[in-house]
Amino acid sequence: MSEKGRRAGTERGTDRMEAFSDGVFAFAITLLVLNIHIPSSTDSLSHVLVHLWPSYFAYLLSFVMIGIYWANHHYVFKLYAKTDHAFNLLNLLFLLFIALLPLPTLTLSEYLLDPNNRTTAAVMYSSGLLLQAATWSLMWLYASWGGRLLDSHLEADFVRRLTHQYLGSVALYAIALGLCIVTRRRASRT
Amino acid sequence: MSEKGRRAGTERGTDRMEAFSDGVFAFAITLLVLNIHIPSSTDSLSHVLVHLWPSYFAYLLSFVMIGIYWANHHYVFKLYAKTDHAFNLLNLLFLLFIALLPLPTLTLSEYLLDPNNRTTAAVMYSSGLLLQAATWSLMWLYASWGGRLLDSHLEADFVRRLTHQYLGSVALYAIALGLCIVTRRRASRT
Amino acid sequence: MSEKGRRAGTERGTDRMEAFSDGVFAFAITLLVLNIHIPSSTDSLSHVLVHLWPSYFAYLLSFVMIGIYWANHHYVFKLYAKTDHAFNLLNLLFLLFIALLPLPTLTLSEYLLDPNNRTTAAVMYSSGLLLQAATWSLMWLYASWGGRLLDSHLEADFVRRLTHQYLGSVALYAIALGLCIVTRRRASRT
Amino acid sequence: MSEKGRRAGTERGTDRMEAFSDGVFAFAITLLVLNIHIPSSTDSLSHVLVHLWPSYFAYLLSFVMIGIYWANHHYVFKLYAKTDHAFNLLNLLFLLFIALLPLPTLTLSEYLLDPNNRTTAAVMYSSGLLLQAATWSLMWLYASWGGRLLDSHLEADFVRRLTHQYLGSVALYAIALGLCIVTRRRASRT
Repeated sequence: MSEKGRRAGTERGTDRMEAFSDGVFAFAITLLVLNIHIPSSTDSLSHVLVHLWPSYFAYLLSFVMIGIYWANHHYVFKLYAKTDHAFNLLNLLFLLFIALLPLPTLTLSEYLLDPNNRTTAAVMYSSGLLLQAATWSLMWLYASWGGRLLDSHLEADFVRRLTHQYLGSVALYAIALGLCIVTRRRASRT
Repeated sequence: MSEKGRRAGTERGTDRMEAFSDGVFAFAITLLVLNIHIPSSTDSLSHVLVHLWPSYFAYLLSFVMIGIYWANHHYVFKLYAKTDHAFNLLNLLFLLFIALLPLPTLTLSEYLLDPNNRTTAAVMYSSGLLLQAATWSLMWLYASWGGRLLDSHLEADFVRRLTHQYLGSVALYAIALGLCIVTRRRASRT
Repeated sequence: MSEKGRRAGTERGTDRMEAFSDGVFAFAITLLVLNIHIPSSTDSLSHVLVHLWPSYFAYLLSFVMIGIYWANHHYVFKLYAKTDHAFNLLNLLFLLFIALLPLPTLTLSEYLLDPNNRTTAAVMYSSGLLLQAATWSLMWLYASWGGRLLDSHLEADFVRRLTHQYLGSVALYAIALGLCIVTRRRASRT
Repeated sequence: MSEKGRRAGTERGTDRMEAFSDGVFAFAITLLVLNIHIPSSTDSLSHVLVHLWPSYFAYLLSFVMIGIYWANHHYVFKLYAKTDHAFNLLNLLFLLFIALLPLPTLTLSEYLLDPNNRTTAAVMYSSGLLLQAATWSLMWLYASWGGRLLDSHLEADFVRRLTHQYLGSVALYAIALGLCIVTRRRASRT
């Protein structure tokens, strides 16, 4: 634990929280590879490898998503001067949806080419992304509300810009989810 | 290793112990997702996803349990001034039951809807929680006994309150386990 | 977070990036063991264990590859004075191919003894190594271009030597991949 | 990276090496739980859970082994003043056998109750332990030879005692392996 963490007393520094979060990020991102299934025997391996493309696509997409959240976490935690218990719990809630992402990723890999179920898989995947974005924004709103946990040197403009950016991405994911649901309804009617 | 750890000589600081523990917490919590099984093909994916609810429930429960222990670990380790060999081993024993939690979680997911076996699964799951709480309390009792490893600035009242809280939760889990065992007996008699 | 990271402001230190990368290295290298499959029952276990040698071979090869990259990462990051956003993303891209290595490793284990598919497995494995080497070199070229992120005390000769070394290994892997492709074509013609 | 690591220049400190090793330890110890297989349906769950005892036994044994090595690693790395490239590679070799332990653990779980194969499983498991002890001792011998990497304040007596202890445990595991091999021969003759 750094000097900073130790000095802080009851209002703790963010060191171990970052270390734990980094562990979950790194592990979730590395677990994604287990979602790509190579059969243990086949006539033509090259044929199998080419037809695994939905798995590669889902792997890449989820890797990028977790990677971006890691980079954001990395970036934003420099702006926090301290944490409190509620913030710890919000961070856990956010990590729950990071750690859960391999599940919709696997679903997307398996059902992207299945015409009956692909819209269901897309609804599940975009729900996963929306829940990540929503809990992420919740963390930020809690921490920045009245400057609760923020470094006091930050400018109000900068903080407001980040708020708009995060809420904007929640809106985008909500729209994406909405489109998936509409497409699914239309598909099931035909 | 921090200056603190290095200076400490034979009585070592808690830095690497916390890092190792954080690793186990982070991996155990992330491994939980592997317990949710998506079939590789199905007629109705949405039907399958809805009927996986016992898996989601068990995932959520175990995620929260490990998360709370992580937060407690995080919190309590600020109160320790040093560690010793026996404490290291107690921490390992505690981590053994943290790392084992994916097993009762999987059992609960698979058998929550099976009327013949669900009480057995509940007995197993609550045993898992009891063993975590018991080894956690053991660590605390060892460290706080006569102030052995504690920061000397802590007030006796505060230490006593934590002791009561930890022993209280052991009692609660023991009662929960007892109730599961009684229910199981009654179920098997009918 | 170290003092160094905290002081750096918008141009951040490399601490958390190294911690996250170490996490991915450590998990990818440890996940490799899941690629070795022990059947749950057999007449002669010793016979099975001996015939798993392609799995041991692929495990060893991939362990050494990830280990060497970890050591290089460890070494090179001492030469960087700072990071920026683009470098962060390049590091993520490199880690994507580190985290992906269990996949070609599994493919190599399963198909090394299959005469119809072993050259395909070799093409896949050497592509994996080439992509790691290429993204690694890309990181270095980006960081060292005009000394962008490097410690200003490094000698130009030393930097040039590293550049040659990294580009040399990219060339070697490209040649290895070329040979695998040629062998595969020749094999499929007969 | 700590001040210590950064100041060290070409002869690097042990910080990132410890972090990486901790990652492998923590991950290998947490992966062990995946070796315990719960069937997805059964008539009597309690019967299944009781008959999994070889899995619990192997889990416990391997958890303790990795835990002890982690504690030793933790302890011994306080005695090192620096690392060099060869030592880094020896540490990797040691970690290879730590990361490999889930494999003999699984083998032991699956074949402990199979009279035809249990001695083979025991030979494999004790080989795994011997290789860990041997590479661990190799690290120590390399680091302590002429005090190469050790803190110069350590007393010669203390260093000699550790050397004896490590070589002694190698001898013990070698004897255990020998006994397993002899038992196996005798078993296959009858």
